[in-house]
Amino acid sequence: MNYAVIWYIIGCVIRVEAILMLLPGIVGVIYGEKSGLLFFPLAVVFYLLGHLLCRKKPEKTRFFAREGYVVVSLSWLVLSILGAVPFVLSRTIPNPVDALFEIVSGFTTTGASILTDVEAMPKAYLFWRSFSHWIGGMGILVFVLVLLPIAGGQSIHLIRAESTGPQVGKLVPRMQRTAKYLYSMYFVLSIVQLVLLLYFKMPLFDALCDVFGTAGTGGFGVKGDSMAGYSAAIQNTTTIFMLVFGINFNFFFYLVSRRFRAAFGIEEVRWYFVIFFAACLGIFLNLKFVGGEAEPSLRHITFQVSSVMTSTGYSTLDFDKWPEFSKAVLVGIMFTGACAGSTGGGIKVARFVLYTKQVGVKVAALIHPRSVRVVKMDGQRVDDSVLSTCNTFFIIYSFIFAASVFILSWDNMDFTTNFTAVAATLNNIGPGLAGVGPAKNFAEYSNLSKLVMVFDMLAGRLEIFPMLVLLIPATWKKNG
Amino acid sequence: MNYAVIWYIIGCVIRVEAILMLLPGIVGVIYGEKSGLLFFPLAVVFYLLGHLLCRKKPEKTRFFAREGYVVVSLSWLVLSILGAVPFVLSRTIPNPVDALFEIVSGFTTTGASILTDVEAMPKAYLFWRSFSHWIGGMGILVFVLVLLPIAGGQSIHLIRAESTGPQVGKLVPRMQRTAKYLYSMYFVLSIVQLVLLLYFKMPLFDALCDVFGTAGTGGFGVKGDSMAGYSAAIQNTTTIFMLVFGINFNFFFYLVSRRFRAAFGIEEVRWYFVIFFAACLGIFLNLKFVGGEAEPSLRHITFQVSSVMTSTGYSTLDFDKWPEFSKAVLVGIMFTGACAGSTGGGIKVARFVLYTKQVGVKVAALIHPRSVRVVKMDGQRVDDSVLSTCNTFFIIYSFIFAASVFILSWDNMDFTTNFTAVAATLNNIGPGLAGVGPAKNFAEYSNLSKLVMVFDMLAGRLEIFPMLVLLIPATWKKNG
Repeated sequence: MNYAVIWYIIGCVIRVEAILMLLPGIVGVIYGEKSGLLFFPLAVVFYLLGHLLCRKKPEKTRFFAREGYVVVSLSWLVLSILGAVPFVLSRTIPNPVDALFEIVSGFTTTGASILTDVEAMPKAYLFWRSFSHWIGGMGILVFVLVLLPIAGGQSIHLIRAESTGPQVGKLVPRMQRTAKYLYSMYFVLSIVQLVLLLYFKMPLFDALCDVFGTAGTGGFGVKGDSMAGYSAAIQNTTTIFMLVFGINFNFFFYLVSRRFRAAFGIEEVRWYFVIFFAACLGIFLNLKFVGGEAEPSLRHITFQVSSVMTSTGYSTLDFDKWPEFSKAVLVGIMFTGACAGSTGGGIKVARFVLYTKQVGVKVAALIHPRSVRVVKMDGQRVDDSVLSTCNTFFIIYSFIFAASVFILSWDNMDFTTNFTAVAATLNNIGPGLAGVGPAKNFAEYSNLSKLVMVFDMLAGRLEIFPMLVLLIPATWKKNG
Repeated sequence: MNYAVIWYIIGCVIRVEAILMLLPGIVGVIYGEKSGLLFFPLAVVFYLLGHLLCRKKPEKTRFFAREGYVVVSLSWLVLSILGAVPFVLSRTIPNPVDALFEIVSGFTTTGASILTDVEAMPKAYLFWRSFSHWIGGMGILVFVLVLLPIAGGQSIHLIRAESTGPQVGKLVPRMQRTAKYLYSMYFVLSIVQLVLLLYFKMPLFDALCDVFGTAGTGGFGVKGDSMAGYSAAIQNTTTIFMLVFGINFNFFFYLVSRRFRAAFGIEEVRWYFVIFFAACLGIFLNLKFVGGEAEPSLRHITFQVSSVMTSTGYSTLDFDKWPEFSKAVLVGIMFTGACAGSTGGGIKVARFVLYTKQVGVKVAALIHPRSVRVVKMDGQRVDDSVLSTCNTFFIIYSFIFAASVFILSWDNMDFTTNFTAVAATLNNIGPGLAGVGPAKNFAEYSNLSKLVMVFDMLAGRLEIFPMLVLLIPATWKKNG
């Protein structure tokens, strides 16, 4: 293991985080909040800490997949722990486990909260919480790579470990350029949304936090009722941008480079919209024919479906009060999630497309044992190793899911609450149903359960393998 | 497709079913129940129907995997539909969908019931219901194979499609002999249990039905409170025999042929007991420290765990009243299920062992990309195609699971009820939690939901692929 490089990169990450902490400090100054000034000394301390770690560039910068996973998971852990410090020191969230839960929920773009009264929180801390969505959405290491081309050709291992989906398409041959492209598009789209929200008369602070939550597909709100209190125009804008940020970023890259056929040929993106419309239709029919009081409103349905499917987690109403079929559909799209290569969470549409195709090939083989069929995606044959990794992902995912439900159950909340709490954290959604529904929060769980969900959120965001590699003793063996 | 062979085998199955229907008729005579006499004319009619279909042996007996799947799934469908007829004609279960649900639940050894008052049912019909467990447990085609060696060397396709687990170990080279061995062991173990139950003073009728439900891991009871009213000795005997019938039958085969090392070397069997004891321990601790009123009793815990894990579904108490962790454990072992090659249901311990090992190999490969590791089971390398079929199984299983929950949700029962109703039927358990808990039944679901669960029970018993092949248009294409 190349520890020198690992420490160096983590040092860089800490320095970047320290600089980013100045922003909530400034927000504190603007709103005249004393508690917000805490961010300044912390930024200085963290910057020095990071500086210590990356004082000198390591001689050997060569590293492999293993180091890639370890760097990414350790970076995210360190990022989260330091990010939780302001909450604890300012006593805005006195319990360290709660603070860790909240900021991990931020960085992993989950949006699950332990706060019982969001609006009581100072603006500087609300800003930090929402801003962490924006940082975590595209990935902190991708960001670091934009700034410094440290890992040379091996940075593919970093992007791979931090990006989502079954495989990372090589947009451009050099990884640093890919990282730059990704962040530029992310930035531009965020600005467009911000301008629109301001145009629709959303207050600047709310609009900024809304953008952070939308772009990162996070979902922390700054109001107690999430997005319910805003105008229809603001809600609809958010619906559209949640959907946009759930799209595979390759799509925008193709659009920008005028390769329209390639853009609209991405199978995953097409399935993403098919699932979106199918879910909306199903809920519409359910509300119309079974719903009782709940009125089927296009605005509310599209908002909720977009929010849950992209793993954002905003809400404009308490969907826990919807009839069971609608809730089941929401739980279903919690799992499918958004596109690979987006900021969204979940298992990802691309994986589901691969799963479905594999099943087709397998069943065809049962009927015609001698025929040879292969799984294709976007016109290209999908490698067997990609498929087997995809399948293993699903298996580990299910194991972690089940184990988490077991541990949460010890707190004796009901099954629906535990199941959807795990679904909402492992898929980085935010709210679940019943006891963790949109009108509730995660405060009532024990510290142990919260730590399990912290693990789930990180495992969900990093798509399991990096967190798993971190836990395996073999990773730390000398001879490896 | 070799239709001649398909019809011929189905004809044989119908004839066998007709003969077996004489037994409940005799029970009716013994208990002086007029309604039970209906079984005699039905037996005659069905026998003639079967005779028509298999009047002449087909010239070409050669057939392939595809025909194997189709024969098995069609046989089970025909078996179920004819098996439901007595309930409908006698008006003991007037709704045909309910009758189909009940008998499919019987043949697939599920034990989920739509009856609100079991004890009001005439004994002949109770007997038929329980007896269907015994028939379905080992498999009707295996039974047919014992009687007539029709399919020659290709009968492997039949046994494969009807047996459970990732692969069928070839116990003895000739399939007919394997079938004979399996049924002999099944018969002998059933007799042993019957003798013990009678020794503990269980009434003969109850004891017979108990044996049918235990041996087939079915779980239909003849009392409204399942097994709660019987003595501790009877309950404990049932606990032990449920466990016994959940063991891979290879184990008994090795025991009988005095290959003790091979018997106790079967990894799956060892894991089966590890999971059993771990589940008992977990529930014991949960009842002790969280349980409140529920007293941790070794007898009740082992009974419930044994019942759910082997997919039998008897109960000695209403485990829906247990605390959440204990319930979560029960839901968990609904999925692991019993051993492959047993009469039990679920995903099977063998598959879980393979899943776990695959994950291990995959993670090791992440850390050391150049190392080559293979998955081994019982000392032998597991073929890649077995693994990939195993994985595809898990994926299709999850898809069917999710789709079923969606459809059931339309009836607007709560999530826990729908989720465990599907878990209980797709894994062939019997009772679930909440609205389908041990003290409740499946009567309240709509006909559509019941038909979905009929499909799930058949898919669960036949391990999905045969039912899937039946539904695929390509199966029925001429040129195939």
